[in-house]
Amino acid sequence: MSVLLEFSMFPTDQGESVSAQVSLIIAEIRASGLPYRLTPMGTIVESERLSEVLALVERCHQVLDQAGCRRVYASLKLDIRKGQSNRMQAKLESIQEKIGEVAV
Amino acid sequence: MSVLLEFSMFPTDQGESVSAQVSLIIAEIRASGLPYRLTPMGTIVESERLSEVLALVERCHQVLDQAGCRRVYASLKLDIRKGQSNRMQAKLESIQEKIGEVAV
Amino acid sequence: MSVLLEFSMFPTDQGESVSAQVSLIIAEIRASGLPYRLTPMGTIVESERLSEVLALVERCHQVLDQAGCRRVYASLKLDIRKGQSNRMQAKLESIQEKIGEVAV
Amino acid sequence: MSVLLEFSMFPTDQGESVSAQVSLIIAEIRASGLPYRLTPMGTIVESERLSEVLALVERCHQVLDQAGCRRVYASLKLDIRKGQSNRMQAKLESIQEKIGEVAV
Repeated sequence: MSVLLEFSMFPTDQGESVSAQVSLIIAEIRASGLPYRLTPMGTIVESERLSEVLALVERCHQVLDQAGCRRVYASLKLDIRKGQSNRMQAKLESIQEKIGEVAV
Repeated sequence: MSVLLEFSMFPTDQGESVSAQVSLIIAEIRASGLPYRLTPMGTIVESERLSEVLALVERCHQVLDQAGCRRVYASLKLDIRKGQSNRMQAKLESIQEKIGEVAV
Repeated sequence: MSVLLEFSMFPTDQGESVSAQVSLIIAEIRASGLPYRLTPMGTIVESERLSEVLALVERCHQVLDQAGCRRVYASLKLDIRKGQSNRMQAKLESIQEKIGEVAV
Repeated sequence: MSVLLEFSMFPTDQGESVSAQVSLIIAEIRASGLPYRLTPMGTIVESERLSEVLALVERCHQVLDQAGCRRVYASLKLDIRKGQSNRMQAKLESIQEKIGEVAV
């Protein structure tokens, strides 16, 4: 099974710029050892188990909680598919095979 | 702490109508005992703990997996706020106090 | 065609409580005349045309812009289905027919 | 003003693999001339105007409609910020300045 999670999480009580808090989250994701990719709108993580990515989401919230954030918002998308793996790269290649070069 | 989760989850390999599969998920949510509200676009659940709502999401996926779904998509929004509780109703009332009657 | 939009929009530069700003958005939606339902995590709107709901999203942002918000976040889900109408109620009834009473 | 849109759109009535349909959407985005980046979970587009990215979303749906899709699902996130531009790259650099190298 391949679980792809796209998620963003940020405090809404810390003013207009939240890159300091978001950096804490990205560091937590990087430390997880899971394959990930940072994008301008969130982070994509892949795992073979749903529980693993959800546990990571929970740890990311703990990081913000410990940093003093009182209100946190998060948005998640999950694409879970049986009998597949390493889709993070494969999904991009599948598109490029069909329509040629795209910006990634 | 109050954790509000809005989420929808559905198979994408089971054809145009997925109300049979979505019903399995709603039954799982209802059985959780957590306060919830079904909407035309998903379900809202409240808990004092993030781990509790994430565990529910995982069980909902297991239900679809056991029903033979090979590809499952989910979309989640989390609004987590310290020092508050019972926000499912309070958020609606807060809006109505400001602008009068709204459709809920 | 039936277009169901679930969306939430809020400023992230206005502090922990944003119900004043969210109220402006709900008032704009209510004034649109489209069928809608306010939930604790957003608003659901139905239309026969995608352009109509997207124009509403744009007006909602203008309202926040005019209220002095410098950074605005929004999350939208769209469920667009041909050959159907009045799905806001029908989707709920379809679930209830299958598993009995649910909290709505 | 900088409008960042992250979005994914796909048919739910066309079976387990939808890369053919998703490719049509990516081609439409690429043809728009707007700065964009394809990710394994969606596409990120930047513009100075909200109306421009919403019009693109509408065209993407038209492409799927013309390809015979009867039910289409979409998920969108918007991050709209005044007084800034070219944030697609700047947001990534801001994170890297704080915590060092990350996978992008």
